[in-house]
Amino acid sequence: MGETNRRIVLQRRPVGWVDEGVFALREAALPDPDTGDVVVRNIYVSLDPYMRGRMNEGPSYAAPFGLDVPIPARAVGRVERSAHPEFPEGAYVFGMLAWEDYSVAPGGAGLRRLDPEQAPLSYHLGVLGFPGLTAYVGMLEIGQPKPGEQVFVSAASGAVGQVAGQLARMKGARVVGSAGSAQKARFVVDELGFDAAFNYRDFEDPASGGMGAALDRHMPDGVDVYFDNVGGSMLDAVLARIRERARLVECGMISQYNRTDHEGVRNLGAIVRNRARLQGFIVGDHADKLPTYINGMAGWLREGKVRVREHIVPGLENAPATFVGMLKGENLGKTIVRLIDDPTRP
Amino acid sequence: MGETNRRIVLQRRPVGWVDEGVFALREAALPDPDTGDVVVRNIYVSLDPYMRGRMNEGPSYAAPFGLDVPIPARAVGRVERSAHPEFPEGAYVFGMLAWEDYSVAPGGAGLRRLDPEQAPLSYHLGVLGFPGLTAYVGMLEIGQPKPGEQVFVSAASGAVGQVAGQLARMKGARVVGSAGSAQKARFVVDELGFDAAFNYRDFEDPASGGMGAALDRHMPDGVDVYFDNVGGSMLDAVLARIRERARLVECGMISQYNRTDHEGVRNLGAIVRNRARLQGFIVGDHADKLPTYINGMAGWLREGKVRVREHIVPGLENAPATFVGMLKGENLGKTIVRLIDDPTRP
Repeated sequence: MGETNRRIVLQRRPVGWVDEGVFALREAALPDPDTGDVVVRNIYVSLDPYMRGRMNEGPSYAAPFGLDVPIPARAVGRVERSAHPEFPEGAYVFGMLAWEDYSVAPGGAGLRRLDPEQAPLSYHLGVLGFPGLTAYVGMLEIGQPKPGEQVFVSAASGAVGQVAGQLARMKGARVVGSAGSAQKARFVVDELGFDAAFNYRDFEDPASGGMGAALDRHMPDGVDVYFDNVGGSMLDAVLARIRERARLVECGMISQYNRTDHEGVRNLGAIVRNRARLQGFIVGDHADKLPTYINGMAGWLREGKVRVREHIVPGLENAPATFVGMLKGENLGKTIVRLIDDPTRP
Repeated sequence: MGETNRRIVLQRRPVGWVDEGVFALREAALPDPDTGDVVVRNIYVSLDPYMRGRMNEGPSYAAPFGLDVPIPARAVGRVERSAHPEFPEGAYVFGMLAWEDYSVAPGGAGLRRLDPEQAPLSYHLGVLGFPGLTAYVGMLEIGQPKPGEQVFVSAASGAVGQVAGQLARMKGARVVGSAGSAQKARFVVDELGFDAAFNYRDFEDPASGGMGAALDRHMPDGVDVYFDNVGGSMLDAVLARIRERARLVECGMISQYNRTDHEGVRNLGAIVRNRARLQGFIVGDHADKLPTYINGMAGWLREGKVRVREHIVPGLENAPATFVGMLKGENLGKTIVRLIDDPTRP
């Protein structure tokens, strides 16, 4: 073990755009566990857009983050000290831990053992973790794309969007994605096999015709399923182009997370006219499906049916800047901070 | 039969608020049916908010109304001339006919015989017709209120809202309504048995706190089911107050029908946070349920479990002004124009 336990805390709540100044790096004594507690040396910690919501005081999916405590986050690590029979020292584990070097799981609660032979450990924060399960539940259970249907995925190069689009393709749908750069748009077509994609920033100037012009170009037949990660003006443009009985999967509204004044959505009348459905969901309600999901998805990954890209940044001290960058779209794929070298990866 | 067939046509398409000038009364020769056609002397014709959408050129539920042809509308009448065995002269029938004295149903197509002993004939345009079925499908199949849940119905004194609220009460929910006058709000509480109601016009001034203040006062615990007839700022206020797994039944958005610039809805993020559902539907998809519905509802009406109020205006020539007035909320209950005295009603 090191000398101290470095931890990233929220020192004040952001208003509007989050900046690095809301975070602080604190040093604490190394954990001194009781018998039965498990000390985990974190290798990877997760950075997810939903965490922005929990930085506010108001209601989000869950209780707001506390101030001056390590930021709770999903993490993958190696058991450092343990008398727990299920989690022996040296075992690899996943848990809801925190942005810190060492975490303590009292009585091993919430930990799950990982098999590093099944898939890279970091995948358990992305494609084999809650982002992947989010894509699976949202696309297949709520979106239910059928062969030949028109499916649109926003934030398509992100951790959730990558998987959502590929699952729709596996179901025989035509899949179009939007992303925040030309490079990301090329990535989802060339590497992930989407049918088309566009850089939404090319359409932010109203003179370009806006998001509606982008959709008219790439989805001239309208939209049957929209996997929505962004909300705002993109959602409005999609609403104006939905087909009958369209399903809008409301996974997130990242375009609104840093706004104090939310954009108005004007085309909800299309929901009535097209007998469409707009369904919010939270992956935590579906956590019981994770083991089955992991087995299935690990197979698809081995067979090359699903491909993913991760954005892994070394150094716990870089978590704040990486989080801010992620909300600005500077990542490509699942954003992860690596605290120490992964012993299972050469 | 009279001397001529008076008909109300749409002579031009309204832009924004509809005014009487878009309609015209035309006189035509009396119908001269082929053998097998059924001539109906219309007694009651229906005026419904959805018709406003069909006056536009753009897409709505169905094709736009044609210009210079009688306005298609559901109607109840008496068979005037017929050689059709199912619809003998003197029989009472319901059909999708038009705002005109006499309609012809080729081969009797689309007509349904009515039993004037079962219920007043005019009820087949309201509580026993598509407005009632709309309330039934929307509230019970989509909204699915449970005992003790908080249910909100906008346009609660209207043809659909009256029934929707009473059905939710029958399921054991607490039901609150909004309406466009103090008189209407009293009506839904005193005569229909809603738990509470308010006049939304009292809250249009932002200084009053807006629709949010009205909901906070009458639904302090939030909203589980919203039966939405109005859209716009009321929908936005409800979104900010939905409970987990709320169901928003999107029946109509009458507040937006006469607007060329739709109001923006800012609180859709609540759909994600609360894993809520916003579901549009069109009653025409459920027409096969009408016979079963009529039998059940006719029983509830006889037993006094459901009560309704109709707004019946005499004179075909008054249909345009009555339609405009309905969109402004001048009616109380299902709006109907009566062309001639109802022979079954003393």
